Amino acid sequence: MTSYAAPIDDMQFILHDMLDAPSSDIPGYGDLDRDFTAAIIGEAGKLGSEVLHPLNAVGDREGCRLENGTVRTPTGFADAFDALRDGGWTGLDCDPAFGGQGLPYLLQSAVGEVFVSSNMAFNMYAGLTHGAYSAIHTHGSDDQKATYLPHLVSARWTGTMNLTEPHCGTDLGLMRTRAEPAGDGSYVITGQKIFISAGDHDLTENIIHLVLARIPDGPAGIKGISLFIVPKYLPDADGLPGAANAVSVGKIEEKMGIHGNATCVMNYDGATGFLLGGEHKGMRAMFTMMNEARISVGLQGYAQAELAYQNARDYARERLQGRDVTGARAPDLPADPLIVHPDIRRNLMDQKAFVEGARALVFWAAHLIDRSARSGDGEADGLVSLLTPVIKGVLSDRGFDSTVAAQQVFGGHGYVTETGMSQFVRDARITMIYEGANGVQALDLVGRKLAQDGGRHMMAFFDEIKTFIAENKADAALNADFLEPLKAASKDLQAAAMYFMQEGVKNPHAALAGSYDFMHLFGHVCLGYMWARMARAAGTARAAGTATDAFCDTKLTTGRHYMTRQIPATRLHLARITAGPDHVMALDDDAF
Amino acid sequence: MTSYAAPIDDMQFILHDMLDAPSSDIPGYGDLDRDFTAAIIGEAGKLGSEVLHPLNAVGDREGCRLENGTVRTPTGFADAFDALRDGGWTGLDCDPAFGGQGLPYLLQSAVGEVFVSSNMAFNMYAGLTHGAYSAIHTHGSDDQKATYLPHLVSARWTGTMNLTEPHCGTDLGLMRTRAEPAGDGSYVITGQKIFISAGDHDLTENIIHLVLARIPDGPAGIKGISLFIVPKYLPDADGLPGAANAVSVGKIEEKMGIHGNATCVMNYDGATGFLLGGEHKGMRAMFTMMNEARISVGLQGYAQAELAYQNARDYARERLQGRDVTGARAPDLPADPLIVHPDIRRNLMDQKAFVEGARALVFWAAHLIDRSARSGDGEADGLVSLLTPVIKGVLSDRGFDSTVAAQQVFGGHGYVTETGMSQFVRDARITMIYEGANGVQALDLVGRKLAQDGGRHMMAFFDEIKTFIAENKADAALNADFLEPLKAASKDLQAAAMYFMQEGVKNPHAALAGSYDFMHLFGHVCLGYMWARMARAAGTARAAGTATDAFCDTKLTTGRHYMTRQIPATRLHLARITAGPDHVMALDDDAF
Repeated sequence: MTSYAAPIDDMQFILHDMLDAPSSDIPGYGDLDRDFTAAIIGEAGKLGSEVLHPLNAVGDREGCRLENGTVRTPTGFADAFDALRDGGWTGLDCDPAFGGQGLPYLLQSAVGEVFVSSNMAFNMYAGLTHGAYSAIHTHGSDDQKATYLPHLVSARWTGTMNLTEPHCGTDLGLMRTRAEPAGDGSYVITGQKIFISAGDHDLTENIIHLVLARIPDGPAGIKGISLFIVPKYLPDADGLPGAANAVSVGKIEEKMGIHGNATCVMNYDGATGFLLGGEHKGMRAMFTMMNEARISVGLQGYAQAELAYQNARDYARERLQGRDVTGARAPDLPADPLIVHPDIRRNLMDQKAFVEGARALVFWAAHLIDRSARSGDGEADGLVSLLTPVIKGVLSDRGFDSTVAAQQVFGGHGYVTETGMSQFVRDARITMIYEGANGVQALDLVGRKLAQDGGRHMMAFFDEIKTFIAENKADAALNADFLEPLKAASKDLQAAAMYFMQEGVKNPHAALAGSYDFMHLFGHVCLGYMWARMARAAGTARAAGTATDAFCDTKLTTGRHYMTRQIPATRLHLARITAGPDHVMALDDDAF
Repeated sequence: MTSYAAPIDDMQFILHDMLDAPSSDIPGYGDLDRDFTAAIIGEAGKLGSEVLHPLNAVGDREGCRLENGTVRTPTGFADAFDALRDGGWTGLDCDPAFGGQGLPYLLQSAVGEVFVSSNMAFNMYAGLTHGAYSAIHTHGSDDQKATYLPHLVSARWTGTMNLTEPHCGTDLGLMRTRAEPAGDGSYVITGQKIFISAGDHDLTENIIHLVLARIPDGPAGIKGISLFIVPKYLPDADGLPGAANAVSVGKIEEKMGIHGNATCVMNYDGATGFLLGGEHKGMRAMFTMMNEARISVGLQGYAQAELAYQNARDYARERLQGRDVTGARAPDLPADPLIVHPDIRRNLMDQKAFVEGARALVFWAAHLIDRSARSGDGEADGLVSLLTPVIKGVLSDRGFDSTVAAQQVFGGHGYVTETGMSQFVRDARITMIYEGANGVQALDLVGRKLAQDGGRHMMAFFDEIKTFIAENKADAALNADFLEPLKAASKDLQAAAMYFMQEGVKNPHAALAGSYDFMHLFGHVCLGYMWARMARAAGTARAAGTATDAFCDTKLTTGRHYMTRQIPATRLHLARITAGPDHVMALDDDAF
């Protein structure tokens, strides 16, 4: 019932007209000319629309089954995974030394959006594999790299992340899984992990679990945690899957959505593990995966909203119900299409303005990540570090809201399974939770990132916006419609940061009671900045003829919608923040 | 896994300290003394907590099955329905002439909240029966009343509402179901209805369908629609279920939630129907049910949020994770409970402040309905008519958001089925859709109710708030914390109404593009007014000793949280409204 088409034009606009990627001095960016990126995204879109998306509802309906200890994925998933692998999609931005194509992460992000929109649960199998690749690539020994990376790049093997235990999620210091030295350099891993996405499946011949565990007699709490490579099948002398390791699936969780991806309880019963990145350095290594995963979850948030938007828009054009209040628009039909009604349009414009702004934000962040990784730019790294919790928290929260809004366009038909809209909502809901629930993102932002390196990255963000405004304010229309509202929003963000600096020192609760609002305030400024940049890019694209007038007009209208209807929310967030912690903290626990 | 306890203290506070119900001159209110209402709510709470709530997850898991043309409800539902019936709960506020207890609708609302929180899907069987009772009681002939009402009051029979058809939901003018005169005063009903809640089941010996249909040669569109009583089994000479009528269940819809209630496709294949309320007067009669249903859906919205809040609060007290940033609160435990963290408290306070304000609003509306129905007060009727779309739209939207926020407290454990939180979210989602999707509520509010009777009811609402502020502003603390923010919010609402009056005349799109924001702005003013009234009531209750100091302190803190963190949203809604329709209406349909 549902459909999906890759938003190639919008992606091309961001890559070229807004970011001007091929002109960048970042190594590898020179390859990203318009024709090349269009071809790649177009091919990804074909695979997404024709192969992956038709399996989205199948995955939801069938879910995964545990049969004789092995997870069986839904009908068609194995063939689709072969298609993904055979198309070379899994190693797009990976190191050519291990079989990757070495393309920028920016392009990987565009392709990633297409696959996530097409089938989020399916894409998680490859997505987590990429995380495992990155952790081993960054922290592994040469032997480990040689053993694992080629198979992860080619997706002949997949990867997982094992952090959570029944009694500890966010607070990893409580972790109990043990890793005892086996005497031969390996470790014996014992414990139970839960909520392991893609923990088992029948798509590949091997699965590489990255497992956090505690080596005995190490430091207490989070400082005593190490990361281990625990293969489902231990590589033999030829590097092929050999003896089965002592790792098994306890059960598949029943959950609200993403049924196509097996969320497993994993039991490690004396499994063989190999230390990755040094004793007690587990958190550092895990954060390599985690930061990448957090950006990816932000991407999931808006990618699911894009899918939902496309289907809501199509339904609003087709479904006949009621008449335009100013007179029939389709007098020869029994009623006008839903899209004539102002509140339906308001809803669709809200979705569209969010999704396009979010896409620009994630592509910009990917651009910064490339600048950091490929050009060694520490400032870019610091800025991405600051933006990561905002991207994860805000894009997943608002992506969910946007998906719910898309479902609403269908009325009662959105609530029944048949139209597929309820799956989108159920799937989108997880993005607010995993890889650190959004409250934890807000805590990370306010408690850590804001003041990191003496607050330098926050200042750099403000400077970037100030510079952009200064450089463009001569354009009167741009200034009035985009720069002025951006400036006002940015001032609200500065006032909030100032409040935290002044009050948070005296009382940390003052900052943390406002952390969630600060994250969303920050998100609005980011999206407002993206809209200002897109508005400017629409002008240059129109002049250069790289986008049609219709495209540029639509882009400007959508941006103005954001600037008039969404970004004024910064004032509300600031009011909540400066309301302080008194009422939030006042009640005794038992008065709730 | 989940639990529920009726919030008796808070209900008693609203009924007595805020509304002072027993002192009212409304007939029947004299009976509502503190002990009596406490006893009734307490008994309802017992049935809810012990019998209905344990079946909530059962209903979700098992759903309903269609067996040989009959819907089978989940295990335990039939016994629970017997308990509901035998306890006399179904006729609480019904006419004693037909076996009801004649108690005020206000008390029915309190009891209704308890049952909805306990098990929303289950309660819909009785809830829709009440709607059918009201329609027949208001519009039926003496014979019809005598035939149907005693059985609906006793819930030996249940009722349904049949409006929607596959091609028409909101736009009932498109309706195709036909009603041909049979010659004997009855009609022959032919057509298909969809989304019929409680359309069939095995709880009672008969089901009375109220069906909208079109009598041939009547006026086109909505003016040619009539309402019919279509019993599943035609009453025989003794008024007992006789011959089976030509009505059957086409299928049960698979849907996102409320699985315990059968949402049916109903086929009427020449079924016998009896005209209710005059030819072509169907919409008027249906609106008797509809208005009642809309208030009930608003109640469902916050009642589900109450259930979710209770479980989130309990989890936040029990789950150990992390430490209070200002120092360990439970140093002898491995970690502090979640509830020490400011953002968890912020989240719980948001939920609590919404739910308690919403409860006060629905009880106040019930009070106005009693005043209208029992004292013939036309002003009260007009005010309720104005408030109905606000109560339906705002309390369901924010009830859903609040339920999602409660789920969030559980982190990953909220996403798995086991904890029950995801069911609450899936169930709550329907309230934004049925009985008129919330966009339609906003349209009803702005397009119809706002200017009804020359805008008199809107003016009366503003006057009521102005008077309340004037009468209480001498109380400096109340004035600063509650009356001033209420006044500011009320001014925003007036400014929005003024904008619609000025711009809407020139361009109806100007009003309708802002309708959704207006509805929510209005909702904030309603809830702010309720909090101001509750704050004053906390003062009088403390003085009179009718509530504990601890209760009053908590009430005031919760209210201040609302006034500082939530009600400032009125400014944002006003900004969106006055941004006008330009960007909302600008795009061509194919530019979306």
